[in-house]
Amino acid sequence: MSAAATDHTTPGALMAAEVAEQPAVLGQLLAAQAEFAGAAARIARAAPRFVLIAARGTSDHAGLYAKYLAEVQMQLPAGLVSPSALTVYGAKPDMSDVLFVAVSQSGRSPDLVDSLTAARARGALTLAVTNAIDSPLADAAEIAVDVRAGAERAVAATKSYTAELLSLYLLFGGEHAARDAEQLPEAAARTLALTPDDRLAAIAAPLQYAERLVLTARGYSYATAREAALKLMETSYLSAMAFSGADLLHGPLAMIDRSVPVIAITSPGRGGKAMEPVLARLAELDAHVLRVGVDEGLPIVALGLPEQLQPILEILPLQRLAWRLALDRGIDPDRPRGLSKVTQTL
Amino acid sequence: MSAAATDHTTPGALMAAEVAEQPAVLGQLLAAQAEFAGAAARIARAAPRFVLIAARGTSDHAGLYAKYLAEVQMQLPAGLVSPSALTVYGAKPDMSDVLFVAVSQSGRSPDLVDSLTAARARGALTLAVTNAIDSPLADAAEIAVDVRAGAERAVAATKSYTAELLSLYLLFGGEHAARDAEQLPEAAARTLALTPDDRLAAIAAPLQYAERLVLTARGYSYATAREAALKLMETSYLSAMAFSGADLLHGPLAMIDRSVPVIAITSPGRGGKAMEPVLARLAELDAHVLRVGVDEGLPIVALGLPEQLQPILEILPLQRLAWRLALDRGIDPDRPRGLSKVTQTL
Repeated sequence: MSAAATDHTTPGALMAAEVAEQPAVLGQLLAAQAEFAGAAARIARAAPRFVLIAARGTSDHAGLYAKYLAEVQMQLPAGLVSPSALTVYGAKPDMSDVLFVAVSQSGRSPDLVDSLTAARARGALTLAVTNAIDSPLADAAEIAVDVRAGAERAVAATKSYTAELLSLYLLFGGEHAARDAEQLPEAAARTLALTPDDRLAAIAAPLQYAERLVLTARGYSYATAREAALKLMETSYLSAMAFSGADLLHGPLAMIDRSVPVIAITSPGRGGKAMEPVLARLAELDAHVLRVGVDEGLPIVALGLPEQLQPILEILPLQRLAWRLALDRGIDPDRPRGLSKVTQTL
Repeated sequence: MSAAATDHTTPGALMAAEVAEQPAVLGQLLAAQAEFAGAAARIARAAPRFVLIAARGTSDHAGLYAKYLAEVQMQLPAGLVSPSALTVYGAKPDMSDVLFVAVSQSGRSPDLVDSLTAARARGALTLAVTNAIDSPLADAAEIAVDVRAGAERAVAATKSYTAELLSLYLLFGGEHAARDAEQLPEAAARTLALTPDDRLAAIAAPLQYAERLVLTARGYSYATAREAALKLMETSYLSAMAFSGADLLHGPLAMIDRSVPVIAITSPGRGGKAMEPVLARLAELDAHVLRVGVDEGLPIVALGLPEQLQPILEILPLQRLAWRLALDRGIDPDRPRGLSKVTQTL
C-alpha cells in the first residue's frame, strides 16, 4: 500500500504487504495449474457423489465458496460439516462416495486433522487444501494441494484466503477453470489500485466510530460477506454481522436503521441480481448502504471474469477497508488482541 | 408469563403467551409420536446415505440441530444446503440416496418449496417439517409432518422452534426417541418457572443499554446460540452475534472485552464439556459471561434428559430474556419493525 509496507514495525505493515501481494500470489497459482488439474482428474476418476467440507475461521469462508462450486459447477450435493460431530461426539458416518475436503492455512488445526482422518477411515476420498504442504493435514489426506500463498505472517489472513479460493476454483471449476481465471491477477491488481489510500480514507471516515455493521450478499458472494465480517471483527473490533440476503429478510432486518451501516456485495451475475429485492427493502428502511461491485462505492474491476471468480476480487477492497479502519481506531491490525495464528480446538 | 398474556394489545403479550405455551405444545407433540415413528420408519426403509437440510431464519437453526442429529444419531453425512444453489443458480445435482429435509413454520417460503421440488425431481426422498400441514411445502414433499405448535401469531417464532426441534428429534433420534423425551414437557415447565419476572428483570438489567452481545456454544447447543441471537436481534434490535466455541477462537475473540457481554451455553454433556477451553480463554480476557445451563445464571432444569434434547430447554430462558429486554427498551416484541410472518425470497 506504500513503501512502509515492508517495514514490519509500522502498525499494519504486515497486513498491508500481504494484501498487496495477492495479484502476484494468484499469478503463481495459475502457473501451477497443472498440479490442480491433476488433482481434479483424480477426484473425477473417483466419481464422488457427495462433497463434505470442513474448515474453521477464514478458511471456513473458502469452504462456503467451495460448497457453491460443488453444488453449481460439479452438480454434486454438498454441505459444510461440523468437525465437532466427528471429534466431540464421535459420529461414525459411512463416508463411501464422499469427497471430504479440509481447508486450512496452517494445516495444523487438530480438529480438522482428526475429522479428515476419521472421514478417510470411514471411506471418504480426502483432499487437503492448505498453505502448508508439509503439515499434518496434508500428510493425513490422500490428495493435498498447496495454495502457494507463501508464509503468511499477519494474524489476519488475506492472501491465503484468495489463494484458497482460486485453488478451489482450479479444483472444482471444471476443465476450463484455469483459462477462465487468466485475467484474474490483472483484475486483482487493478481492483487494488481503485482504492488508493486517500480514497480509502474517505470511505472509512463515516465508519470511524461505528460499533456495528451488517454485510449482506447472495450466492458465491455470501462467502465475501462472511470473510469481510471476520476481517472487520478481528482487526478493528467492530461487531460486523454477515447475512445471506435471503436470511436478512427473516428477522435481522428489524435491527437495521440509519444508525447501522450496511455493506452489500452486488457484483455482476445471478447472486448480485438476486440481491435486488434486498436492496429495495433496505432502501425502504432508508438504510445507509455501501456497495461492493463494478462502479460501486467499493469498486472492483471484473474484466469480464465469470461470477464464480468475482469473490476473489470483492474481498480486496474490504480487506483494505478493515486495515484502514483498524489504523484509524488506533489498533495495530497485525497484532489483534487475544489471537494467534494457529488455533488449537479439539 | 402473567394474566396479561392473553391481552393482545399489551406490548409483548402475544410472544409471552406463546413462550408460555411451550410445555403444552411439547406434550401434544409427544402424544402424536406414532405419526413421527411412522415417518421415521419410511425414511429408514428408504435407507438414505446423505441428509441435506434447507431452511431459513428460525427454522434454519432447527435445521442446524437436525444436522447434528443426522450426523451423530443417524450416522449419516449431512449438510445444510444453500437454497440459492438450486433456485438462483439452477444447480441440478444427482439427489438419489439423499434425504432432503425442508423445515419451515409457514410452509410458504417460495425458495424452500422450489428447492424441495427440485430435489424431489432429482431423486431425493423429500421430507417437510412444518407448522402448516396444508401448505405448499407439505404438498410438495413425499413425507410431511405437522409440528403441531398451533397458530403462531407473534412475529418472533418461539413455540414453533421448540416444536420443530422435538419433531426432528422424534424423526431422527432413534427408536427410543419418544421415550427419551417423556420428561421434556415437565422439564420445560420447570425451566420457565426458574426465571420468574422479577429474576428475569434483574438478569436483563445490565443489558439495558448494550448495543452488542456475543453468544457461544458447541455441538447441539450451537443451534441455541444462533436462535437466541436471532431473537435478540429481531425483538430488541441488539447486535447479537453467535459463534461456535471453536470458531470464536479463530478471530472474533479479538472483539471481546468487558464492554461486550457474552452468553455461553454450557448444558451438561459433550458440547458443554467442549466449551471449557473457550470459557478459560474468556476468563483470561476478563469477559462478562452469563451462562445458560443447570444451576447457571440463566438456569434450566434438565431432569436427566439426554444432551440432544437440552436445546429445547436452553432456548426458553433466552426467549424470555429477549422478550424482557425488548420491553425494557420500549420496543413491542410482537411488532418488530420491518418484519412480517412469511418472508418471500426467491
